[in-house]
Amino acid sequence: MTSMVTLIDYEHAAPRVRAVYDDIMATRKTNHVNNFWRALAHDPETLEATWTRMKRLLGSGSEGTLDPLTKELIYLAVSISNGCEYCVRSHAAAAQRKGLTEAQYTEMLAVVGLANETNRLAVGYQVPVDDSLK
Amino acid sequence: MTSMVTLIDYEHAAPRVRAVYDDIMATRKTNHVNNFWRALAHDPETLEATWTRMKRLLGSGSEGTLDPLTKELIYLAVSISNGCEYCVRSHAAAAQRKGLTEAQYTEMLAVVGLANETNRLAVGYQVPVDDSLK
Amino acid sequence: MTSMVTLIDYEHAAPRVRAVYDDIMATRKTNHVNNFWRALAHDPETLEATWTRMKRLLGSGSEGTLDPLTKELIYLAVSISNGCEYCVRSHAAAAQRKGLTEAQYTEMLAVVGLANETNRLAVGYQVPVDDSLK
Amino acid sequence: MTSMVTLIDYEHAAPRVRAVYDDIMATRKTNHVNNFWRALAHDPETLEATWTRMKRLLGSGSEGTLDPLTKELIYLAVSISNGCEYCVRSHAAAAQRKGLTEAQYTEMLAVVGLANETNRLAVGYQVPVDDSLK
Amino acid sequence: MTSMVTLIDYEHAAPRVRAVYDDIMATRKTNHVNNFWRALAHDPETLEATWTRMKRLLGSGSEGTLDPLTKELIYLAVSISNGCEYCVRSHAAAAQRKGLTEAQYTEMLAVVGLANETNRLAVGYQVPVDDSLK
Amino acid sequence: MTSMVTLIDYEHAAPRVRAVYDDIMATRKTNHVNNFWRALAHDPETLEATWTRMKRLLGSGSEGTLDPLTKELIYLAVSISNGCEYCVRSHAAAAQRKGLTEAQYTEMLAVVGLANETNRLAVGYQVPVDDSLK
Repeated sequence: MTSMVTLIDYEHAAPRVRAVYDDIMATRKTNHVNNFWRALAHDPETLEATWTRMKRLLGSGSEGTLDPLTKELIYLAVSISNGCEYCVRSHAAAAQRKGLTEAQYTEMLAVVGLANETNRLAVGYQVPVDDSLK
Repeated sequence: MTSMVTLIDYEHAAPRVRAVYDDIMATRKTNHVNNFWRALAHDPETLEATWTRMKRLLGSGSEGTLDPLTKELIYLAVSISNGCEYCVRSHAAAAQRKGLTEAQYTEMLAVVGLANETNRLAVGYQVPVDDSLK
Repeated sequence: MTSMVTLIDYEHAAPRVRAVYDDIMATRKTNHVNNFWRALAHDPETLEATWTRMKRLLGSGSEGTLDPLTKELIYLAVSISNGCEYCVRSHAAAAQRKGLTEAQYTEMLAVVGLANETNRLAVGYQVPVDDSLK
Repeated sequence: MTSMVTLIDYEHAAPRVRAVYDDIMATRKTNHVNNFWRALAHDPETLEATWTRMKRLLGSGSEGTLDPLTKELIYLAVSISNGCEYCVRSHAAAAQRKGLTEAQYTEMLAVVGLANETNRLAVGYQVPVDDSLK
Repeated sequence: MTSMVTLIDYEHAAPRVRAVYDDIMATRKTNHVNNFWRALAHDPETLEATWTRMKRLLGSGSEGTLDPLTKELIYLAVSISNGCEYCVRSHAAAAQRKGLTEAQYTEMLAVVGLANETNRLAVGYQVPVDDSLK
Repeated sequence: MTSMVTLIDYEHAAPRVRAVYDDIMATRKTNHVNNFWRALAHDPETLEATWTRMKRLLGSGSEGTLDPLTKELIYLAVSISNGCEYCVRSHAAAAQRKGLTEAQYTEMLAVVGLANETNRLAVGYQVPVDDSLK
């Protein structure tokens, strides 16, 4: 496993990977590239495609009909349901940079809990879809 | 299974269940009680507790720091990740009543897809949490 | 997909598969073999191994320290969490044959709902394991 | 993330939170409040609602048609399927306090493993629901 | 929900969507565009990005170090674990076009079942990672 | 929890468990028995059944229509989707012993990510199964 999960530093990165690192740092106004991207650098094509989509969908100045903070909450809700610690921690930090308050975070969590509960009640009772919802 | 998943109509409901049905109809300004609640009526205590929380957390006039539509999107994101068809259909309808547009729905879906992808990339690369995120 | 998901009838089954079908019918005192086993018959080795374990773990006269009904509830709880409709329906029927009441079923469901909710709260708050639990 | 996942001690807790802590300690006859509740204290309303349901559903003297140990096993089965380490550790301890033996725990685990396997076989073979189960 | 899940036909598709449809039909040598793409057409940007990745990763002539059939099996294994009926059916068909035999399909399923079982046993026993695996 | 998750050493193992340990070491040409098996030793019957299936399905010289490395990739894909760290680490090591390269691992991961994304898009758009796939 060792070699597959090493993190690739800027100094040892190929030009194609460095270009993504540069864009990440410029976009986020930081000189730090998170471990996620430094691991993904083992697969430059997926690194590029993922960063492009992440930037487009969740970036601070991203276009779209939902504001960036709402999208971070959606991202967090999924990551919490899936139990991904890394994703929860990194996107909670990202959301805080976009203005997330503690009260908003706990309220999102309550909704995530309720959804996970009621999803299973719907399955357990084998609730048929209402005609009005078809 | 049959008896466990029947839907309980208003006429056959116990007073305690009827009280919840009445509140659902009054709150939603409708004379229709969704199948979910009519199935859950087999367990009056859970019916009451679940409706109370659903109303408090997702109700149109719910208090809190997140607006009701944002919370419906969070609920939908979780339900989609969990593959709950009933929950997706009923809350997509609820979200539409709160003003959800098609563009917002598809944008939420794109974020849900990205989160489900990157959650697994983080696991597959066994990415360690950055010191700055601890 | 067609050929892969056909159900194999007794008449068209190989001797090795028929032996399992015979044991299922004798054990359950019925002349019906559920679709699950008739699909699994495409892979006789897995059919045998799975039926052997199912009979040993969940059979009416199964040995062990948990009674058969409790184990059906455990099986159902997992199947509901995973959203497997076939598994929920077939094991709810099996549990009813072992004496499951509607009240027990709804109480199990309430616990399944609570577990699914609190599992996510624990992740969302990134709760560290208590020293006393290590 | 830091501020969101701090644990709230009794001394720094609001009266409403203290009331729940007091009830937890009195009910469990201990002067220790688990980290889960001390994290959930960031959201007093969810803390109250969750503790109330946990006490009612899983409490030692809980009413209902299933005994408390059976319900802990159901809770554990779900938590294991979802991969929630905190939930597994805390409820394994709770179940031990209610008399769980090692043999019962391993038998539950074997059923959880079987359910998770057969759930996927049912999906993979796209097994149609038997007419007799509808 | 209705408007969000309609399927967009070629005739009613925008030029950008038509270009993707054209490429799908040319690549697959068919005049049929699967429902998945016709639904995703509501979000042209995600349609383009997803088709590009699907073609690159799973296409018959895709480059890479894994052959296309192996990658279809990986795709199927994930979809079965997640319980996605649409994905199982559409990619089982795709895999058959790439030469998948029934014996290979059932063998893959047996591995998927084993993985889902042992994943939970590892969690249930809280197995620590071996020093030799770190 | 303590007693339930201890690892059972060869010296303290019952003869039936030792027989499995011996077979594991002989099969893998090593004198090390992984923690997973030493935990599972608490349930000798499940230990035997699981090892038998693991050896038959994933063993280096396993019969079947899929080669052992392909089956390790399938096993890994499921384990990553389920977020099982132990399973990912131990089977990544097993796959490396069977010749897995870093390029193959990252390509598998990209497919796993794509499947997890598109599974949810299919659910979110409630895509109906094509007539041609039924």
